Amino acid sequence: MEFWVSIGSTYSYLTVMRIDAAAAEAGVSVTWRPFNVREIMVEQNNIPFKDKPVKTAYMWRDIERRAALHGLPASLPAPYPLPELPFANQVAVMGLKEGWGVAYIKETYRRWFVDGQRPGDEPNLSDSLAAVGVGPEETIARARSAEWEAALALETDTAKSLGVFGSPSFVTDGELFWGDDRLEAALDWETGRQRL
Amino acid sequence: MEFWVSIGSTYSYLTVMRIDAAAAEAGVSVTWRPFNVREIMVEQNNIPFKDKPVKTAYMWRDIERRAALHGLPASLPAPYPLPELPFANQVAVMGLKEGWGVAYIKETYRRWFVDGQRPGDEPNLSDSLAAVGVGPEETIARARSAEWEAALALETDTAKSLGVFGSPSFVTDGELFWGDDRLEAALDWETGRQRL
Repeated sequence: MEFWVSIGSTYSYLTVMRIDAAAAEAGVSVTWRPFNVREIMVEQNNIPFKDKPVKTAYMWRDIERRAALHGLPASLPAPYPLPELPFANQVAVMGLKEGWGVAYIKETYRRWFVDGQRPGDEPNLSDSLAAVGVGPEETIARARSAEWEAALALETDTAKSLGVFGSPSFVTDGELFWGDDRLEAALDWETGRQRL
Repeated sequence: MEFWVSIGSTYSYLTVMRIDAAAAEAGVSVTWRPFNVREIMVEQNNIPFKDKPVKTAYMWRDIERRAALHGLPASLPAPYPLPELPFANQVAVMGLKEGWGVAYIKETYRRWFVDGQRPGDEPNLSDSLAAVGVGPEETIARARSAEWEAALALETDTAKSLGVFGSPSFVTDGELFWGDDRLEAALDWETGRQRL
């Protein structure tokens, strides 16, 4: 199953922290696919929270309850918005190619939702890279290149071509599921426990 | 537990058809509170589907899967938008006061999602009223009055004061839950199975 995730999505915190255990329990292997959800949402005029204080307040309370349900720590509201959202995901795409991407995404989300530090910005960025065993300075310098900018753009285009419009999304067998609260449904689809 | 529902909300079809059984199983009594979600969403600039074809296509597919999961019939996409959304809910508010409101909401949703007939419009409106045992002509004439227009507006204001911004919503113990996929969480909150 593909897990399309964009650092910067608030609800994706829940999924990033629990998908490994949920997928293992279902016997499903997961491929993490970081992308730039902001590009797609702006393009589709899909602005769920900006200038929507009532819905935004609900979102944080809902995440607080869901985090408690799953036993995940959270200090809310986490800082928002994230100026460096694209670069945070550019680093993730590079990390996925090099084998440290999943660990980096988890580290940067923990620093965002528990320590209140913005992904893609310092100190979150360097500390997350160091925590997963890669040199921050060298890695950041390599990631700031046309090559990895293009790699992120390609992943974002692929997401778009699959109908992905938000994060987290799950794609299995050509079927798209959106939202942390569809993780179980996606795993059920993958294992054949639900088909139409 | 209060069930804030606005005829015209697509996902509310799932809740309208399954809340009685789910609440009975949880031992929770439910008060249905129809309101005009469109007024709140327009006011809050919360436009989730209009001019968003990718997200809209996903929504219908997601509802199709969720309906199948719950064993509910659905012929999708159901007709949309609904010009008579406010009046459909005005009738519902009257029906709740007079004892036939819940049955009417279920009837009008079934005609919308199974038979492809718009709520608040003919033949759905008269047939739904007749099906619940009230005279369509007389009831429609009474509902088209300043009295019931004001009653709907009052319910909508009350919803707003509770932080309700979408349908379906559930309010229990001052706690708000939004979305058919939060029905179980709301019932758990009501019965004390989850508290922060």
